[in-house]
Amino acid sequence: MPDKQGKEARKIVETRYYNMPEGEEFVLESGVKLRELKIAYETLGELNKKKNNAVLICHALSGDAHAAGYHRGEKKPGWWDDMIGPGRAFDTDKYFVVCSNIIGGCKGSSGPNTIDPSTGDPYGLSFPIVSIKDMVDAQKKLLEHLGIERLLAVSGGSMGGMQALQWAVSYPERVVSCIPIATSHKHSAQQIAFDEVGRQAIMADPAWNGGDYYAKGHPSAGLAVARMIGHITYMSHNSMEKKFGRVLKKEKLGYEFTTEFEVEGYLRYRGDSFVKRFDANSYLYITKAMDYFDLQQDKKLHQAFKGVKTRFLVIAFSSDWLYPPHQSKEIVKALKMNGIDVTYCEISSDYGHDAFLLEFKEETKLVKHFLESTFRKLGK
Amino acid sequence: MPDKQGKEARKIVETRYYNMPEGEEFVLESGVKLRELKIAYETLGELNKKKNNAVLICHALSGDAHAAGYHRGEKKPGWWDDMIGPGRAFDTDKYFVVCSNIIGGCKGSSGPNTIDPSTGDPYGLSFPIVSIKDMVDAQKKLLEHLGIERLLAVSGGSMGGMQALQWAVSYPERVVSCIPIATSHKHSAQQIAFDEVGRQAIMADPAWNGGDYYAKGHPSAGLAVARMIGHITYMSHNSMEKKFGRVLKKEKLGYEFTTEFEVEGYLRYRGDSFVKRFDANSYLYITKAMDYFDLQQDKKLHQAFKGVKTRFLVIAFSSDWLYPPHQSKEIVKALKMNGIDVTYCEISSDYGHDAFLLEFKEETKLVKHFLESTFRKLGK
Repeated sequence: MPDKQGKEARKIVETRYYNMPEGEEFVLESGVKLRELKIAYETLGELNKKKNNAVLICHALSGDAHAAGYHRGEKKPGWWDDMIGPGRAFDTDKYFVVCSNIIGGCKGSSGPNTIDPSTGDPYGLSFPIVSIKDMVDAQKKLLEHLGIERLLAVSGGSMGGMQALQWAVSYPERVVSCIPIATSHKHSAQQIAFDEVGRQAIMADPAWNGGDYYAKGHPSAGLAVARMIGHITYMSHNSMEKKFGRVLKKEKLGYEFTTEFEVEGYLRYRGDSFVKRFDANSYLYITKAMDYFDLQQDKKLHQAFKGVKTRFLVIAFSSDWLYPPHQSKEIVKALKMNGIDVTYCEISSDYGHDAFLLEFKEETKLVKHFLESTFRKLGK
Repeated sequence: MPDKQGKEARKIVETRYYNMPEGEEFVLESGVKLRELKIAYETLGELNKKKNNAVLICHALSGDAHAAGYHRGEKKPGWWDDMIGPGRAFDTDKYFVVCSNIIGGCKGSSGPNTIDPSTGDPYGLSFPIVSIKDMVDAQKKLLEHLGIERLLAVSGGSMGGMQALQWAVSYPERVVSCIPIATSHKHSAQQIAFDEVGRQAIMADPAWNGGDYYAKGHPSAGLAVARMIGHITYMSHNSMEKKFGRVLKKEKLGYEFTTEFEVEGYLRYRGDSFVKRFDANSYLYITKAMDYFDLQQDKKLHQAFKGVKTRFLVIAFSSDWLYPPHQSKEIVKALKMNGIDVTYCEISSDYGHDAFLLEFKEETKLVKHFLESTFRKLGK
């Protein structure tokens, strides 16, 4: 059955790597210059001859370049596989989908866990602080390497949404449409506070050792606590109550300091599994980048979007209290004040912030149609 | 000016200690028996001849027996001084106010940091797990020692409110009125989750050492992280935004992992100052007691209040997302189903859970009137 084989084959993806050519420099928002830049990326679908069907997917805190499909021999697909693939919201039969690991990450791109060529050791904290703008600029380098001058769309949830917004603001002529999901144009004090506590949990772990731990032993305990805090903020009060309530892992309370409630077990499991796949220093860099993100700065927000021609589909979720809908509405209002074509949709969901990964059916309806109409308009 | 001196003198309070008489036993909810029980307490005002003007104030997680007035030579009054004193909500010209440190605490009452007479060393984790019911039973012992058979009122915010509710359920004949504030009849999954992350932060600190650290060095880093998490949940999104927003501690972002935003500095300060005055093991015991608290159990909530004759004033705060108003409303509904005299008031406030310590003007209006009418009815 060649058809089925073809379909299966299309699902296999491989991580590739872009290395900035020697002699070039990558200048960060801080002014620091990198002489080396490596970006891990994956692609699905095919770039058409007009090169106008490219869609960039930006990942969130714990994501990576592996957004969809399967790595050979692996049973778990990429983190947004429900949204990306043949016939899906980001239809790989129509669009050329690119997803890259952010600069500062720990999944193949340059970051604190990669080797500093000047020392031969991992950078650790000597890796420069990066911003959302730096993530976008690194993606731009990659896209130029791939021959893509203009994106049909850029999309992502949470920190991925920040990157999408930054793309539209920094390179309006390169972005036909933008789909920021469950995100904000700047972190509030509470959002900074949650990030800061996560960072403090990591830095409080003696194994962190000022970021110099790669040859010794990772600060797993601290990173697990940071991740546990994160998970509480990703779920809603209601989704936690429905999923766990006060259900016990055992028959009755044992009057001891073990895991007794299901919700405790869930958090510990999430914390423990995260440390196996993530680098603590990257957690510091990425949360810092999110906290720094502020499209508004000293201006009014609508001034930040001046000159933007990109079409927008802004999506938020009713029970998301980490990136609450009112933050998305502020973006929508500022876009409208610039006469920009924007559609806003608040999806009713109990899943909290996690909804952007889970409510794919609702998201698909919105994204599929939006992309198709954007692509059609482009053809005219 | 003798009057002023008299007024000043009335403001001075001293911590006293109740020691369970030798030969008696204190049986915990877990079944464990304590042969020694020490309870630190303070009193304000005077017990009248009828002994019917006693008010018990129950403290929250980080509180202690020092609810109001001044310790000699100290400039900072007790934690609820705005509410307790001559002419205040809990008027010490009229009522005899008692506040004691909970069992399991670290402010003078028996807890993990007190000496185990069988070893001569601090209990550490060999101190038995205590419940909200155990806190109440220890208070009952103290009150009997003070000659108080019946309370005019029992009140407290947060965990103090849980104790107040437990008093009304366990000893309905001993409680004329009950004022639970910003509390719940049981912890939800999210409330357990926040507590569990705090505990994990402490236990992740190598200095915690299984709870055996008193002779070595306290797990300050872990406890500070736990406290920082707590502080985020005590404030509302809005109060954090108003107080801090994205204001920097310095002129501009430094692209480094220092304290850059005001909100970060606030959290670190709160964490650091807490570890100077609190015991990490107590933090574990107290949060565990809150997580265990469940008046409902396998019953319907209204069944838990069967036979209760106490008058209730239930207070919640609009922006409290840690103990949201809907939890108070559930209590009110269950009380009403039993025909119990209950008044509910949701105070509009931006302060989040902290409001129970800050909105004393609004609380005073409600509590003062409620106590006076309760006292009047008693006299008839």
